[in-house]
Amino acid sequence: MKQRILVVGGLAAGPSAASKAKRVNPNADVTLFEGGEHISYGICEVPYYVGGIVNDPDHLISYTPQRLEKEKGVKVKTLHLVEGIDPVRKKIVVRDLLRDKLAEHPYDKLILATGSMPRSLGLSGEKGRNVFNVKSLDQGLAIKQFIDQEHPRRALIIGGGYIGMELAEALRNHEMQTTLLHRGDLPMSGLENETRLAVKQELEKHGVAFVSRSHVQELRSDTTGKVVEVMASTGAYEADLVILSLGVEPQTTLAKAARIRVGRYGGIQTDQRQATSIDSIYAAGDCCEIRNVVNNAWMYIPLATTASKQGWVAGENAAGGRAVFKGVIRAIAVKVFDQEIAQVGISSQEAAESGFDVVTESITANSRVGFMPANAKVHLTLIADKRSKRLLGANIFGEDGAVLRANTLGVAIQQHLTIDQLARLDLIYTPPYSPLWDPILIAANQIGKRL
Amino acid sequence: MKQRILVVGGLAAGPSAASKAKRVNPNADVTLFEGGEHISYGICEVPYYVGGIVNDPDHLISYTPQRLEKEKGVKVKTLHLVEGIDPVRKKIVVRDLLRDKLAEHPYDKLILATGSMPRSLGLSGEKGRNVFNVKSLDQGLAIKQFIDQEHPRRALIIGGGYIGMELAEALRNHEMQTTLLHRGDLPMSGLENETRLAVKQELEKHGVAFVSRSHVQELRSDTTGKVVEVMASTGAYEADLVILSLGVEPQTTLAKAARIRVGRYGGIQTDQRQATSIDSIYAAGDCCEIRNVVNNAWMYIPLATTASKQGWVAGENAAGGRAVFKGVIRAIAVKVFDQEIAQVGISSQEAAESGFDVVTESITANSRVGFMPANAKVHLTLIADKRSKRLLGANIFGEDGAVLRANTLGVAIQQHLTIDQLARLDLIYTPPYSPLWDPILIAANQIGKRL
Repeated sequence: MKQRILVVGGLAAGPSAASKAKRVNPNADVTLFEGGEHISYGICEVPYYVGGIVNDPDHLISYTPQRLEKEKGVKVKTLHLVEGIDPVRKKIVVRDLLRDKLAEHPYDKLILATGSMPRSLGLSGEKGRNVFNVKSLDQGLAIKQFIDQEHPRRALIIGGGYIGMELAEALRNHEMQTTLLHRGDLPMSGLENETRLAVKQELEKHGVAFVSRSHVQELRSDTTGKVVEVMASTGAYEADLVILSLGVEPQTTLAKAARIRVGRYGGIQTDQRQATSIDSIYAAGDCCEIRNVVNNAWMYIPLATTASKQGWVAGENAAGGRAVFKGVIRAIAVKVFDQEIAQVGISSQEAAESGFDVVTESITANSRVGFMPANAKVHLTLIADKRSKRLLGANIFGEDGAVLRANTLGVAIQQHLTIDQLARLDLIYTPPYSPLWDPILIAANQIGKRL
Repeated sequence: MKQRILVVGGLAAGPSAASKAKRVNPNADVTLFEGGEHISYGICEVPYYVGGIVNDPDHLISYTPQRLEKEKGVKVKTLHLVEGIDPVRKKIVVRDLLRDKLAEHPYDKLILATGSMPRSLGLSGEKGRNVFNVKSLDQGLAIKQFIDQEHPRRALIIGGGYIGMELAEALRNHEMQTTLLHRGDLPMSGLENETRLAVKQELEKHGVAFVSRSHVQELRSDTTGKVVEVMASTGAYEADLVILSLGVEPQTTLAKAARIRVGRYGGIQTDQRQATSIDSIYAAGDCCEIRNVVNNAWMYIPLATTASKQGWVAGENAAGGRAVFKGVIRAIAVKVFDQEIAQVGISSQEAAESGFDVVTESITANSRVGFMPANAKVHLTLIADKRSKRLLGANIFGEDGAVLRANTLGVAIQQHLTIDQLARLDLIYTPPYSPLWDPILIAANQIGKRL
């Protein structure tokens, strides 16, 4: 009998896992279930649709269900919500949302790619028809439609993480008066303070009112179901449009009900083969915690690239292969108006918590030779361990050449380079693109004096 | 008695070596001799002065002799030409060019940083007053003055290497009718053929007439000493301005006379401490050959960054330290009009000559997510060894994000990453700066299928 591989979740990890499983075992019967209407789209690209950088939402979709079926040989069931797992009888319970009908599907191998869900404030009013998150293509389409139809003038963003930054720019593109309420002092809590301060300044430079230490207490609605005023610890804010960007957490309702092991961040913990604690069940993507290879700690770092890679590994192993996913260093970036903001490796706080003897050093340097027209300042913070002299992490920001330099630092971190090795790297010097001493070398030399 | 450290040559390696020696042994008497008037300037930046990107030649100078003396404690003797070395008596013979006087200077340690010299055609007419190379600041100043005063309309560049590319753009900036004569089929002989073809197309797109397989036979001068016509195997070319960009070779007259060991490229071969084959004599910079750590072969790769690093090592060791310079991977780039052209590691030809089982693969990908306005195509060629699966080298070109990606590949090459490891690198995805799969990952995945 054909091997039956079932995949739950259709965004990033799910389609990767299903496609890979089918490729590894073409005789397998691979079925993907997705509760929503769309699969395989670029959720990270949604802010650019909202901001009007890309106008056709089809450009955000990698695979329609039809294309995935045709090109990859995977059966795709959208609007099918998986409601339960029976790991003993190896069956899942699936609700067909169109027909509102329950059915059982047996599996030989099950892959959970249930993703993440947006955090909520836990306040009534969050369901207001002018209140959105950016956690699905549907939400992106709804925001854009709301903007086009109702021309909101005042936007309130609640939460100053990555998505909050991207939405601030997107809404300023529409010339909305934009206020961002954030619980902490500075935006983007995972970054170093200097970077966070630069982000705040960049927001303010582009007309975003950043309100720190703001705790939202109430969303007041009018009779039409629209939130019109937000009461927070810092005051009352009138709004025509409210974006919730409070971050995400792993969607593990199914996994927990099946008693699959989850970690302190609520994400599924798998082994390097993406196998969960329960026989024949794999997991991949944003529903998982992940090993950071820099400090070997479990973290929650939901990213599309990671999700796809884990999906491939889960899919291959479910189909009988022996693939391995060793973890990540963390390599992320965001555009905040004119600033490229990038982080690789672990933060100084994570490094301290992991027992490293942390040294940090920041420098500002030219991205290119000073007289070249495209030159801009680039700012680096390196995080190193005084005992091993290893580079553990870095923040880098500026208007030119920050993100791609972060990747170079990322490889150095992954390869466990010491600061001395970093300072000796053979990097390109050519006036139009890079100064005699690349900012990476300048920063390495500077922090090296303190090790 | 004070240790006497003498340094010959004032461009890149010399000032680095002298400064470092003085820092390591502040009691040493460190003297730098330079035959020309200027020291420590950015020779790589001269084309941008010629092209009018930077207008003040002072911006090209890192240290004047006075500043080097004051800030680094090094005695600087410009217009002092070193004419001989007596390694037995540990003395050098120096001509004071202003007074035309010879003097002997004893040394405890001698550092040769005599640099490179431009190759010549060996034809009379090369001394014509409208014939220039780009091997010194003086030549750069002379070209610019000639352009400003005599308004040449027709420029002829002889030699299609890096400097030829930069000068083609610089002269087109002045709207000169520009012809480039090159001996080979395609420009830039060290690069892969696809890259070289793209360079040729970029030249032609920007109005440079590229003439391949052209061997210059005669430079015909008028009665005022100006070359007016160049006769080549491909025809006769009228010219108001002639640039010789035939490449450089190590300047080792002094070293050879002192019987210091040189290699097949004519450069001084040192050990990892930058010590030459003769006691108490070190060498650094463009007068040296260098180990390429990818194939462990001696190469001639004259570069400012390398020169400075070797200078530091030579200076430290001359002053009693124990520094090491292990070699380079080769990391170079050039701007050819709108194209960033970069090379890291060894070429497919060098790889084959070194006995690797060479596989190459080229891909074209987006530099950013396709719908982002700054997106452009980027083209990668990876060079790998089929036996070890190691990445050996890469070419990368395009209008966006080629050079900095080359640095990421450079670290991978230096760390002996396999193609499989390269394909698993944790690289940043964020739509404004990098697509879901960075071109590096796409290329690694593609070549991986053939290993």
